Amino acid sequence: MAINRIGFIGAGNVSCHMALALLKAGCTVPVLVNRQASKTNELPEILRPLVSQDISELLAAGPDLVIAAVSDGAIAGAVRPLYGSGISVVHTSGAIPSSVLEAVSRRHGSFYPLQTMTMSEPVEWREVPLCIYADDGDFQSELLELGARISGRPVLIPDEQRRWLHLAAVLLNNNINHILALVRDLMDAQQLNSDLLKPLLEETIRKAGRFDARKIQTGPARRNDQATHDIHRELLETMDGQERAVEIKALYDYFWNAIQQYYGIQLPGES
Amino acid sequence: MAINRIGFIGAGNVSCHMALALLKAGCTVPVLVNRQASKTNELPEILRPLVSQDISELLAAGPDLVIAAVSDGAIAGAVRPLYGSGISVVHTSGAIPSSVLEAVSRRHGSFYPLQTMTMSEPVEWREVPLCIYADDGDFQSELLELGARISGRPVLIPDEQRRWLHLAAVLLNNNINHILALVRDLMDAQQLNSDLLKPLLEETIRKAGRFDARKIQTGPARRNDQATHDIHRELLETMDGQERAVEIKALYDYFWNAIQQYYGIQLPGES
Repeated sequence: MAINRIGFIGAGNVSCHMALALLKAGCTVPVLVNRQASKTNELPEILRPLVSQDISELLAAGPDLVIAAVSDGAIAGAVRPLYGSGISVVHTSGAIPSSVLEAVSRRHGSFYPLQTMTMSEPVEWREVPLCIYADDGDFQSELLELGARISGRPVLIPDEQRRWLHLAAVLLNNNINHILALVRDLMDAQQLNSDLLKPLLEETIRKAGRFDARKIQTGPARRNDQATHDIHRELLETMDGQERAVEIKALYDYFWNAIQQYYGIQLPGES
Repeated sequence: MAINRIGFIGAGNVSCHMALALLKAGCTVPVLVNRQASKTNELPEILRPLVSQDISELLAAGPDLVIAAVSDGAIAGAVRPLYGSGISVVHTSGAIPSSVLEAVSRRHGSFYPLQTMTMSEPVEWREVPLCIYADDGDFQSELLELGARISGRPVLIPDEQRRWLHLAAVLLNNNINHILALVRDLMDAQQLNSDLLKPLLEETIRKAGRFDARKIQTGPARRNDQATHDIHRELLETMDGQERAVEIKALYDYFWNAIQQYYGIQLPGES
């Protein structure tokens, strides 16, 4: 049977964007349960009338599926009221196994969108890999069918692999964003416009997509160019006392060593 | 007087892409001096007849400008034969000051394209910031005019600032590429398709361009989510003995600590 009536526990970024996508795909979304009534006016206007603080309204609405999109630590507690209702339930977490929902419903699974979401920014759902898994084969098929209605890339990813995918996503998103934060600090300190780096950033990403990042590394560390290293290191010393100088130096040194070790470049003092 | 006849010392990625752009803009490129005749057949076909191993051919061609696009350490030696010719000369280095050309010509400067270039990939010159500087004001104006013929973003960047820009470019390009290399190792080890991460990567970059990366950091380190940290750390331990396990763990730990420190998150044991 196709899933059409979908309730949410949680009214954060993932809940809201997913609810909007499901509504657009012709599904019904009777209720979003939100513990913090105060935040309702920050939600997209179309969702506000659907928000309730009372989970019994969700149960009364008779949904085909409940999507629990709350923080990892809150999942088990948030779904407890569904116990005994026979309602199918999934969560949207990358790190937590779907079995955390086992006690609540035989039909339990994972519905994890591999994308970073902000309330104010539209989500390109056609491009978002939607990672799906359920112990129950029939339920899994229904979830895949539902996933295909909002995402161009519904994929079957078992719990164990999804944990790795989540780890990779964190390494990629948070760490690249941190490099961009420190580079911005550096550009600000030298009164340089960060926009100058935009074409380079875009080309870096484009190339790593077309080729294998491991085969196209360039730069002074990769070619063991000590003269450029010394120029950069000297420059960095002149930042002493400025904001973020310590952090920027640490970043430079960490990657210099990491790249040299990765590509097996002989370090001074090694034989 | 406008610069129209431009010779090159060097026939690497930057020389070739810049020569192609100048030819397309209607300039004349009489000669590219290349010490390694062996590599000529790797060059774009249109440039091959222009390549010479003999710098006297460059001098004889009477160029308005010579662009020395060779490695940093080779610049001073490569331009020495121009001494006394009165020919204007620039280099394309980010890290080296333009004054390294002072002894060769009064009209010396910098012509630094802020982009990563590969022989096989076309360069979107309209998007490439071209960083220009010369001591001589008239010469600088001529370089800016020439730069505007190939780039949509000719910018005046003095030597000192250009060094910082180069440092920022290295931090950004090489370090992000290294993260992408290690994430690919991780995905390969778990038999996951790296393409799954592409929409997340693109959104990460898009958001950092629209907002300030320092204000949109998310993830377990930023919100001090120790439970997720422990799940990730446990997973990483299971990689022991696999290729790149040590490097991936080091990357994870480095950024966990760096992000926590950057955002002033209290570390265990601190008061």
